[in-house]
Parts: sequence; C-alpha cells; structure tokens
Amino acid sequence: MQLFYHPYLSESEIILPEDESKHCVRVLRKKVGDEIILIDGKGTEAITEIVDDNPKKCKLNIRHRKLHNAQRTINLHLVVAPTKNFDRMEWMIEKCVEMGIDQVSFIETGNSERAKINLERCEKIAISAIKQSKQYWLPQINEIQKIDTFLKNLAPKSENELRCMAWCETELTEHLNKRINALIHKHITILIGPEGDFTSNEILLAKSKDFIPVSLGDNILRTETAAIYATALLNALT
Amino acid sequence: MQLFYHPYLSESEIILPEDESKHCVRVLRKKVGDEIILIDGKGTEAITEIVDDNPKKCKLNIRHRKLHNAQRTINLHLVVAPTKNFDRMEWMIEKCVEMGIDQVSFIETGNSERAKINLERCEKIAISAIKQSKQYWLPQINEIQKIDTFLKNLAPKSENELRCMAWCETELTEHLNKRINALIHKHITILIGPEGDFTSNEILLAKSKDFIPVSLGDNILRTETAAIYATALLNALT
Repeated sequence: MQLFYHPYLSESEIILPEDESKHCVRVLRKKVGDEIILIDGKGTEAITEIVDDNPKKCKLNIRHRKLHNAQRTINLHLVVAPTKNFDRMEWMIEKCVEMGIDQVSFIETGNSERAKINLERCEKIAISAIKQSKQYWLPQINEIQKIDTFLKNLAPKSENELRCMAWCETELTEHLNKRINALIHKHITILIGPEGDFTSNEILLAKSKDFIPVSLGDNILRTETAAIYATALLNALT
Repeated sequence: MQLFYHPYLSESEIILPEDESKHCVRVLRKKVGDEIILIDGKGTEAITEIVDDNPKKCKLNIRHRKLHNAQRTINLHLVVAPTKNFDRMEWMIEKCVEMGIDQVSFIETGNSERAKINLERCEKIAISAIKQSKQYWLPQINEIQKIDTFLKNLAPKSENELRCMAWCETELTEHLNKRINALIHKHITILIGPEGDFTSNEILLAKSKDFIPVSLGDNILRTETAAIYATALLNALT
C-alpha cells in the first residue's frame, strides 16, 4: 500500500498538497470512499478516507491514528562535505534514508567543492524515501555549516557515543567495523570528508572533539559511496 | 594519480582510444614525456610515457609493468533483476564496483520490468569505477538471461560457497549478517529480486539450487539499494 505524507495529522480533516493530490487522484485514480494511508514523519500513521477527490486539493477524513515508536537500535548522524555534483548527494540521501539514518548534516570544509545545498530538495527526497521504504520517522536534514562551527557546537561526547571520521589514510587506521561495539554505542556520528580530504587543521579539531579516524576498506571510495557504505555497515552491525 | 584503461597491455607501444586520448591530452593537458599509468583490468599496472600527445590517438611507450594479485578475500557474485529505470542500475554498478565485487549478472524474472540491458554501457561504468577507486581487476558483467536458465546452468554449490536470495518476506528469514561465516564462505552469490518480488516457482527453483532466503533488515529497500547494502555488508564482514 502506497503511503502519502502530510506533516500535520492532528486535525480530523486533511487536504493533500497539490502534487500529492495529483498523484493520488490522477496517477493512482483514487476516488471518494477509497482508503489512503498518511504518515507525518513523526511516528503517526493515519488511516483516512477520501471525501473529495479533487486532483488539486484532495480532501481526506481521518478514521484512525496509530503512533509508531522509533524502532531503531542506534541513532546515526551522518556528517558529509557535499560533492560538486549534487545529484550524487541526492542519491546518497535517498539510499541512506532507505537503509536507515536519523540525521544528516552538511559541512563546508577547506577542500569542499560546494558551499550551498538545496535543503528543501533534500527533504523532499528524504520524504519520498521513507514513503518508499515504509518508515514512520523522517530523518532530520540540517542546513550546511562550516566544519569549525559544526565541531565547536558539538556537545561533549557521551559514554554511549562513537564519533568517527573517514579519510584516505587507510594504512594508519582500523576499519570501522573494528571500532563499533553494538553493546556500547547507541549514538554514532560519522564525518565523511571531501574528495580532496580534510585539511590537517580540520583533522586536529575533529580529534579534539573525540573523533577517531577509521578506514572504510582498501578501495578509494567517492564521498557518497563512503557515506552509503558506512550507513549500510552501521545499520547491519548494531 | 589518475589511471587510464586499455584492455591490452602486452605490446610495448599503446595507442589510447579516442575518448581516453581526448581526456588525457585536452582535459588533463598531458604532453610528450609525461608519465601515464594504465591498467588492463586483469591485474596489470603499466607505467608509460607519452611519445605522441595526439588528442585523438595519444601514443604511449610502456616503461615498466607490475602485476597485482586479486587481493579480495571473497569472490562476490551479485545477481539482480534490473529495474525499469536503468539509471538506478548504472548507479548500482558504480557503487558496487567501487566497494568491491567480482561478477554481476542480470536476470529476467516473471515480475521483471526490463528484459534488456546495455552491456557495453555497464562495462564502461565498471571501468570508470575501478579507475576511480584504484583497483586493478575489472569485475565481469554478464548479459541478461532468464532466471530459469541462470539457475539451471549453475554448478553444484561448493562447500565454501554461500548462496542467498533477498526478498521481502522479512518475517520468515534471518538477516544476511547472521548467515555469513567469513571463515567458511569464500564464494558468495546473492540474488536480488525485482520490485514485484520473485514468483513462487522462482523461489522453489532457487531453493533447489541451495539458495537460502535472507533478510536485509526491516526497511523495504529498492532493488538497487538492496544490492548496494548487501555488497557493502559482504565486503565488510569477510
């Protein structure tokens, strides 16, 4: 069953936004009386009935609401320096959200090729991915900020948190799967650098905030591949 | 250092194909006397020198050859029913090759949305991905075939082989990471079904060829996400 998204499900009557209305009525040919399932990305699943199949503002009545707990065993925060070609970041968001992630932050680093992101577009992709993969919680996606600001604003590391950073000096570092302890680590933050790598100052600053360098294997991975690989691994091992 | 690809490196003089010549001479502005590193996807790394910087047929002299062993600890064969939108398969190939894979086969199933693939395009993406990720061995990519033909032609399963299939009935199956034993399994074949799932006959036939159903977690993953997730996991856990 296809899921629809609406951020506010507390009222008894819901009007779908224009694009969702069109998809519902024109593409899926839903009619008055048909059942539609809505999610709000904050755990609510609402079973609704179409009361007006207007293709621009489809109106729904909520019959029943169910609150789903966030069932993930870890809280995973991906922090990434966006690539010049933003298509690669869009794919990364889609794949990471499908596999399971809680927060994505973008950072501007010394060797970054991009200092701006389209946050609205990122959120749309994340919404589409939770609908696709049948999840009830929408990951938080944060506006880009300078890596210094990001690191300086981090709270002190808690005992059940693992902070790690992936960069290319694989010969000096242990693989991520050797660092993760599923019994201890409930919060994981992973920093993925730009193609030109972190600068030495950025590495020092990250280390002062308890980030441990980790390897993601022998192959040199693109930024988005590193993010997807780490997300797959951290979901599977915890 | 950027790598270039040429399938035959046994001669002492090599002429790059037109697209590689253009990239080398026009984009990277390489000139006579500059060093170029070539790979053949069969383990050879050749250090060469440009002797003619013609942007359509750049000529190189081989100075030195080095043979790299295939260093992978497992032989991983991904078998996948291609999606209707082939862009998703192209991304899948790029990501799986970057992370590490040995063979990719495409299968046509009862619920497949696509019965043809562009093998040449797939191979180009794989070549580009090994150059990008600094690997010396090119994975084999096979032409699409019917799932029945694929399964019937499989040799009997060897003792150190794991055959698994990912489909949506997660409640009945153990997670892939519970099934893999890095000490035993040196050959792994994983079947990824179409969005509409395998048919019951296909599941029976696969089981008769010793494929074990596995889960890839609670989220419903798209075909290409399932393939990328499994490839990440199998590379990290073996």
